[in-house]
Amino acid sequence: MIVQKYKDMLQAKSVIRQLSEFAVKRGAEIGYENVFDYSLGNPSVPVPQKFTDTMIELLQNKDPMELHGYSQSLGIPAVRDKVAASLNKRFGMQYTGNHIFMTTGAAGAIAHAVRCVSEPGDEILTFAPYFPEYGPYINLTGATLKVVPADTNNFQINFDEFEEMLTEKDAAVLINTPNNPSGTVYSTETIKKLTAIMARKQEEYGHDIFLISDEPYREIVFAGVDSPYPSKFYANTLSCYSFSKSLSLPGERIGYVAVNPECTDGDLIATMCSQISRGIGHNCPPSIIQLAVAEVLDITSDLSVYETNMNILYKELIDLGFECVKPGGTFYILPKALENDAVAFCEKAKKYDLIMVPCDTFGVKGYVRLAYCIETEKVERSLEALRKFVKSEY
Amino acid sequence: MIVQKYKDMLQAKSVIRQLSEFAVKRGAEIGYENVFDYSLGNPSVPVPQKFTDTMIELLQNKDPMELHGYSQSLGIPAVRDKVAASLNKRFGMQYTGNHIFMTTGAAGAIAHAVRCVSEPGDEILTFAPYFPEYGPYINLTGATLKVVPADTNNFQINFDEFEEMLTEKDAAVLINTPNNPSGTVYSTETIKKLTAIMARKQEEYGHDIFLISDEPYREIVFAGVDSPYPSKFYANTLSCYSFSKSLSLPGERIGYVAVNPECTDGDLIATMCSQISRGIGHNCPPSIIQLAVAEVLDITSDLSVYETNMNILYKELIDLGFECVKPGGTFYILPKALENDAVAFCEKAKKYDLIMVPCDTFGVKGYVRLAYCIETEKVERSLEALRKFVKSEY
Repeated sequence: MIVQKYKDMLQAKSVIRQLSEFAVKRGAEIGYENVFDYSLGNPSVPVPQKFTDTMIELLQNKDPMELHGYSQSLGIPAVRDKVAASLNKRFGMQYTGNHIFMTTGAAGAIAHAVRCVSEPGDEILTFAPYFPEYGPYINLTGATLKVVPADTNNFQINFDEFEEMLTEKDAAVLINTPNNPSGTVYSTETIKKLTAIMARKQEEYGHDIFLISDEPYREIVFAGVDSPYPSKFYANTLSCYSFSKSLSLPGERIGYVAVNPECTDGDLIATMCSQISRGIGHNCPPSIIQLAVAEVLDITSDLSVYETNMNILYKELIDLGFECVKPGGTFYILPKALENDAVAFCEKAKKYDLIMVPCDTFGVKGYVRLAYCIETEKVERSLEALRKFVKSEY
Repeated sequence: MIVQKYKDMLQAKSVIRQLSEFAVKRGAEIGYENVFDYSLGNPSVPVPQKFTDTMIELLQNKDPMELHGYSQSLGIPAVRDKVAASLNKRFGMQYTGNHIFMTTGAAGAIAHAVRCVSEPGDEILTFAPYFPEYGPYINLTGATLKVVPADTNNFQINFDEFEEMLTEKDAAVLINTPNNPSGTVYSTETIKKLTAIMARKQEEYGHDIFLISDEPYREIVFAGVDSPYPSKFYANTLSCYSFSKSLSLPGERIGYVAVNPECTDGDLIATMCSQISRGIGHNCPPSIIQLAVAEVLDITSDLSVYETNMNILYKELIDLGFECVKPGGTFYILPKALENDAVAFCEKAKKYDLIMVPCDTFGVKGYVRLAYCIETEKVERSLEALRKFVKSEY
């Protein structure tokens, strides 16, 4: 019989998608270049040429049976070795290829990490503001996502609430730094405090509490911002990475889980992930994409546009009187709406062709997200619309 | 805490993998060309040049942000439309793009199809001999795989057993035709009888019983063999396809679910699949691979080598006195071992550098699988070893 749970999910249409569809529709009327579409987190700078060249080179010169043949379900061994070496060099870790499990993006990485360390009925804590897909990511495994309220002063961590909420039922804590939607990067102080509490609670409860660190924005950190590598501070860490934003290829679905070698069963977890794959139809990311990203591990797209855009937007928002924490990375900014109802606020903004996302579903009421992964020239043109909107409506 | 279930699974090492590893090791000693390695179902003919050319063309000429950008989680609309049109033309179906859900291979397709129509606690029936991965594919969803014993006369369906085993608890029947490991293709008569029983039982039990048709070998059918399209015979059919074998790109993980438009909630199932994706980290196959296969939907690799190899092997096996059903497709053949213990039989064969897979884990005791997706020249050379093995040991 058709499973009602999934049918019911069809009723809840994503706010982001609805807004993005509106933007496209409005674009058809007035030209999309005149719609200030801040709805979607789709990178706006091209993939590095070296990725493209590597793909073409593989297609032209590698034996197609080898190129397109089955890879091991953990990923291609040489690719896993290279990922480990790159992380070791950058973050002083001790990974080997055996600690790397290649996945179809961060979504695939989280799907494996969560199943590895939690059973149905367990709880997983995360912190507001948070990427709303964490709801289905976690809850559809049978575990339950619990959200620690935001510290809206700086979008670091609300530690008092966290300590109270971290109970014996918690199998893992899921963090996302640099953060979607706030753009905040957790400081070394934050990570130290977080992991100290987790270590203490592990001891107290007598069981592991894993840190699942979702890091698709790891490479988008702005000048002077302290951006520690979480796994460095806590042995029981599974780092979930995606190349979607750093290499501008979200459609190609490529990422990995990096298992801290010092964590419980550290040498088994990657192979356990390949068992999990059998139940969820994962079966490793495409060979050619694995081979191509392995050649560009230490470079990124030109990500500087995001910082440029952030500075322009942040200044204007502050000038216009918005309450707003300055992002340390990503391509998001999360100002407080000028009225309590963020949905109403975003609805009014549409009249000025400004498309922003109300963040009630991100665990913070009254805030709106602007995804500024668009051309700088368009960000600049949007300021006039923003001014007009604020002055006319508030 | 580390989930024990997945840790336990690490103990059971795949028979196929062990044999394949042995073959590689032995190859290092005597040259891999002298090991008659019939262990792995990895295609032995290259991808069509048009696929490679299309990939290169996309990389060279398409805007990289569009090429590598997020696609809808159901797959790229234009790709889904093309898949529908191709199936309609070939099989006289009435699919639209809305009935096609793009997946990471057949494993991804089955992961979605099963979750769509069965709840934990339900049963799903399949028929021996069967691909052993169906065990984890089904059981890790919380449903239970039940296996109808083989009709070893012809590896069609044991209908008496089937009727008895198809109870109210069954949510779906999973078939695989052409079949791994037997090479058998279900005839029109078989499909008609199967679907008639299912239709009757649906009526009797008052709930849907879905047919999940796993078809990665659909395009490898030998001359004169009757190979009906199952969905044509039964409205409640979800066809699961993979391009791995037809285009020789198992590593690139691309396939789809095709939802019979006449089935219950036929217009909703593909979008339900995209809800399921959120829980299992699937999130659509890579954009570039979707776009490239869409250009080669109506062609295949040169698959003729498989029929050539089958004829050579089948004749020799019969000459040597094996009991063996002649395959109608795939690149597998399933003779009965010359002793009751197929594991012992395959162990002895290793002395002659013949690598065959005992099929106890495929639901038939005493049979062995030969995957003849290797060079014809090597098949021919293997005959001498086969003769020597049989004459010396039996």
